[in-house]
Amino acid sequence: MPTHIPSSMPGHVTTGPIRGSKKIYTSPQGHPNIRVPFREITLDASAKEDPVWLYDTSGPYTDPEMTIDLRQGLPKLRAPWLAQRNLEKVSSPRVVRPEDNGYSEDSTASLLPLCPAQHTVLKGRSGQPITQYEFARAGIITEEMIYVAHRENLGRHHAAQKPAENATKNPVAGHSFGASIPEYVTPEFVRQEIAAGRAIIPANINHPELEPVIIGRNFLVKINANIGNSAVLSSAADEVEKLVWAIRWGADTVMDLSTGRNIHTIRDWILRNAPTPIGTVPIYQALEKVNGDVSKLDWYVFRDTLIEQAEQGVDYFTIHAGVRLQHVPLTANRVTGIVSRGGSIMASWCLNGHRESFLYEHFEDICDIMRAYDVSFSLGDGLRPGSIADANDAAQFAELETLGELTKIAWTKGCQVMIEGPGHVPMHKIRENMEKQLRDCHEAPFYTLGPLTTDIAPGYDHITSAIGAAMIGWFGTSMLCYVTPKEHLGLPDRNDVKTGVITYRIAAHAADLAKGHPAAQLRDDALSRARFSFRWNDQFNLSLDPDTACAYHDETMPHQTHKSVHFCSMCGPKFCSMRISQDLQENAQRMAGMAQKSEEFRQSGGNVYVSAP
Amino acid sequence: MPTHIPSSMPGHVTTGPIRGSKKIYTSPQGHPNIRVPFREITLDASAKEDPVWLYDTSGPYTDPEMTIDLRQGLPKLRAPWLAQRNLEKVSSPRVVRPEDNGYSEDSTASLLPLCPAQHTVLKGRSGQPITQYEFARAGIITEEMIYVAHRENLGRHHAAQKPAENATKNPVAGHSFGASIPEYVTPEFVRQEIAAGRAIIPANINHPELEPVIIGRNFLVKINANIGNSAVLSSAADEVEKLVWAIRWGADTVMDLSTGRNIHTIRDWILRNAPTPIGTVPIYQALEKVNGDVSKLDWYVFRDTLIEQAEQGVDYFTIHAGVRLQHVPLTANRVTGIVSRGGSIMASWCLNGHRESFLYEHFEDICDIMRAYDVSFSLGDGLRPGSIADANDAAQFAELETLGELTKIAWTKGCQVMIEGPGHVPMHKIRENMEKQLRDCHEAPFYTLGPLTTDIAPGYDHITSAIGAAMIGWFGTSMLCYVTPKEHLGLPDRNDVKTGVITYRIAAHAADLAKGHPAAQLRDDALSRARFSFRWNDQFNLSLDPDTACAYHDETMPHQTHKSVHFCSMCGPKFCSMRISQDLQENAQRMAGMAQKSEEFRQSGGNVYVSAP
Repeated sequence: MPTHIPSSMPGHVTTGPIRGSKKIYTSPQGHPNIRVPFREITLDASAKEDPVWLYDTSGPYTDPEMTIDLRQGLPKLRAPWLAQRNLEKVSSPRVVRPEDNGYSEDSTASLLPLCPAQHTVLKGRSGQPITQYEFARAGIITEEMIYVAHRENLGRHHAAQKPAENATKNPVAGHSFGASIPEYVTPEFVRQEIAAGRAIIPANINHPELEPVIIGRNFLVKINANIGNSAVLSSAADEVEKLVWAIRWGADTVMDLSTGRNIHTIRDWILRNAPTPIGTVPIYQALEKVNGDVSKLDWYVFRDTLIEQAEQGVDYFTIHAGVRLQHVPLTANRVTGIVSRGGSIMASWCLNGHRESFLYEHFEDICDIMRAYDVSFSLGDGLRPGSIADANDAAQFAELETLGELTKIAWTKGCQVMIEGPGHVPMHKIRENMEKQLRDCHEAPFYTLGPLTTDIAPGYDHITSAIGAAMIGWFGTSMLCYVTPKEHLGLPDRNDVKTGVITYRIAAHAADLAKGHPAAQLRDDALSRARFSFRWNDQFNLSLDPDTACAYHDETMPHQTHKSVHFCSMCGPKFCSMRISQDLQENAQRMAGMAQKSEEFRQSGGNVYVSAP
Repeated sequence: MPTHIPSSMPGHVTTGPIRGSKKIYTSPQGHPNIRVPFREITLDASAKEDPVWLYDTSGPYTDPEMTIDLRQGLPKLRAPWLAQRNLEKVSSPRVVRPEDNGYSEDSTASLLPLCPAQHTVLKGRSGQPITQYEFARAGIITEEMIYVAHRENLGRHHAAQKPAENATKNPVAGHSFGASIPEYVTPEFVRQEIAAGRAIIPANINHPELEPVIIGRNFLVKINANIGNSAVLSSAADEVEKLVWAIRWGADTVMDLSTGRNIHTIRDWILRNAPTPIGTVPIYQALEKVNGDVSKLDWYVFRDTLIEQAEQGVDYFTIHAGVRLQHVPLTANRVTGIVSRGGSIMASWCLNGHRESFLYEHFEDICDIMRAYDVSFSLGDGLRPGSIADANDAAQFAELETLGELTKIAWTKGCQVMIEGPGHVPMHKIRENMEKQLRDCHEAPFYTLGPLTTDIAPGYDHITSAIGAAMIGWFGTSMLCYVTPKEHLGLPDRNDVKTGVITYRIAAHAADLAKGHPAAQLRDDALSRARFSFRWNDQFNLSLDPDTACAYHDETMPHQTHKSVHFCSMCGPKFCSMRISQDLQENAQRMAGMAQKSEEFRQSGGNVYVSAP
């Protein structure tokens, strides 16, 4: 069993393998120094099947060979790659100030110590490629591109060797809505997708601990988990454990949305211990620095925050530069006004002084900063609908058009860009969102929150939104931002984080299947074969949450011998359709003969009485 | 708080109002003797809104005026209606035998007593209309039709009086995929839909306790909850409590899928205490009667079971008559064979003797029995896919075509019919199911299980299936059969039943919104207005599960004063977008002025520099 000892200071986190999985690493051909992690699940010998390899987001925490010490941070696997790129070592990085953590300058509050792990603060040079976008445009394949190509293939060079009888029998042809997922992902394909702006690898040069991830419509659908404290709740220790817990269950990226005290320090512990890309919304910290007074926000405090967080290693920033002064009145008659925190802050700022957004006016300056560290843009949808009634309205779509305009500017500046999307949208209005985003934002990756398909289920909004998320993922969204059961009600705790992550892994996988991703169905098929053969442990181990699947089974049939019986407590032995059906298939030869007769019958025209020749 | 005292014998069940709701009854104009229940939610006075009326499936259990005594059963509200129909009182109803409860004839096992509530066993006469279908075809509007018409309108004659400012601002136009939902449901519209075979009211003349429900594509999407014991688990008391619990949270119909001992007696307690239609799968009990030996099944034991259950009052039977001998070989190469219990029993029976299904061969006899009591058909999909790999395959679709053929026969015989559907289907193959069902089964209502959109999440299959259920509900399915978190793992308990029901209410409501049901969005809008105004209690009360919504909120902000503060623990006071946005809307007049200027600006061509006139 994994150990879990959260304390008030980051100390221990959940470690140990996921039930039934073994951490393995393989290297892309010709790149022995690049080690890509997978989870290997060895099946019961009776299956006579090769092990199944799964995409692994969990980082070193599930590797029993690793010693985890949060104060030392994770290994800096990208450091040797970055060392080759002629980056500038920042001689005097920005120094942490009390207000970075929400304290006044003369505060005597005892500060939480920073993570002792150090990283050399790097910065790019002008005139030389820094960002993955710039490398891609220059025709250069980076180590990050090689890494993600290998990762996306899910070890299928390996699967290709398995016996033909285990191959997918009814392969998903899929309906991709214009996505072009290749049979096999090559580093050159990755480069082309990034150069076209259709995909990004969020990878700040100050986050050397990162295991690179690609976000784009022609790759596996990714999910993001939000963590972070609020002024009311939570601690640094809780947030680091939430990070580790979220990636254990499958979060591809994690956003730290902290808004209370110790924002800088919590982020510091998170970044040094995060193998996944970390995103933030810098305006939150900027607002804390001016003590929550929106009227005191300006370009300078925001700029300072961007540099502070870029030097720390944040991989993508949500920037609400699409909330323009002229858009604010469009929200006046909404049922739920503006529900994005960043959106409401910027709308308030614009309206207070009746002036254009400083994010919009300084957008090129923001690009210059983000390019220098390769921080990717996540262009925020500050005017996303917060209710079914407000879906697809003028405010939402006006902002989306502005985001398209900003996308082109960011590309010109060499930056990587994705676009955030709604929100609350009924099913029949979801596709319009995706189509408009592709058209207006020039195929930059879409990163959507849900959408929630009804407003009436607080406490279950992971489900109302998973319906919309699966659909929009199918239609072309590249990354789905999770929603937890606590949405609209309170700050999610560790259990909520897990429920949100598993729910969104379902949505993302359902989307991969429907898009026809060539590797997606392998796992479904392996699990279904295990189910049909009553290999209970294989079924649990192949599932998204082996612990829960096993626990539910064991509630009524706890004994070890129950792991091989040919029924469960749902139907009992006499009524188990799978058992009866398995018995039938043992008559397969007889059935095959019948199938042939049946086929002859159909070919003869299906007439019961055949006239004599 | 509701009381809940399950014991080994049916005694006490959960009673009392749902949090924040009051049970009311209203009568359709001109029919003072028909009382239709609704849940009325009175909002906080600050809202200045009329009360919200909700569809109410919960029966007398949530009415504090009622005294619930399970031994007396529920009031027989249909008895006066049925008394007018010239039905025959069966002079010697079938007598209960030990084998009906799974005991041998000379068993000395102490039998669970039957429910003491009595009902006069009725039977129709030939040559006179008995079923709702026959009445509808004869141009006669029954009390059941009047009842459901009033019920479907959700008290909107009432809502029409509410102030214009609360009207839906952005009404859902919907995309109905060919459904024709009227603005207002009349009894005559109900009659026409039933006469066309597009809708059914499952209502056995021996179930006088029933509050009628309509199932059809042009009405609100319904959900079914499965309960029932298995040979391994559960008791009569547990099952009656599960029934009451399932309808409390919104199950429109309940299937008793019991397969262990005491099948007859459990069903007896359920029927006499069920205000919702009850469905069963008679082949389960027939198989118990022959001690689980499929080879001993025959038409006579099945016929005896149909009559036994029809006299008890079961409202619809799943009949797997579409599993024909010639279909069985089509399943030989499947990944998961046959996963329907009934399907596997029938396939096994056919293959054992290499003979055609007795259900198929005796289909007209079955119709005659079911017509005599107005038991509706739920034509079972015995060959539904049990895995993504098997979706939409030859076996599944061959059976569906047979079900279409049987639908026509059943209609000719005067019976009501719905059709069961899959199963496990990836998103991009769902619509094909719906289209083929409408075409091949002549628009008879579709009643689908999920479908599950991936196989990889045992423990979370309420979610994998809610995605598919919402979509197929939108496309045209009339009733969604729930899936609980225990699917594939064990028998659902009371908590699983609630989770399944709430999840499927989400799917059904999301479908109603997307279809453009004229009343669906009223609840979303009322809840969203409550959310935006920080009327926390109104938000909880309007939600699908007020208890859970409130409990999640109270985890971090438990005090009564927290029910009116303008933030929650997710964002805290400084970052609450709704609070900021509400402040903005107080500047509404200013915004309106800006909106006008903005409009003038757009109309002038959108040029910042306007040439002088």
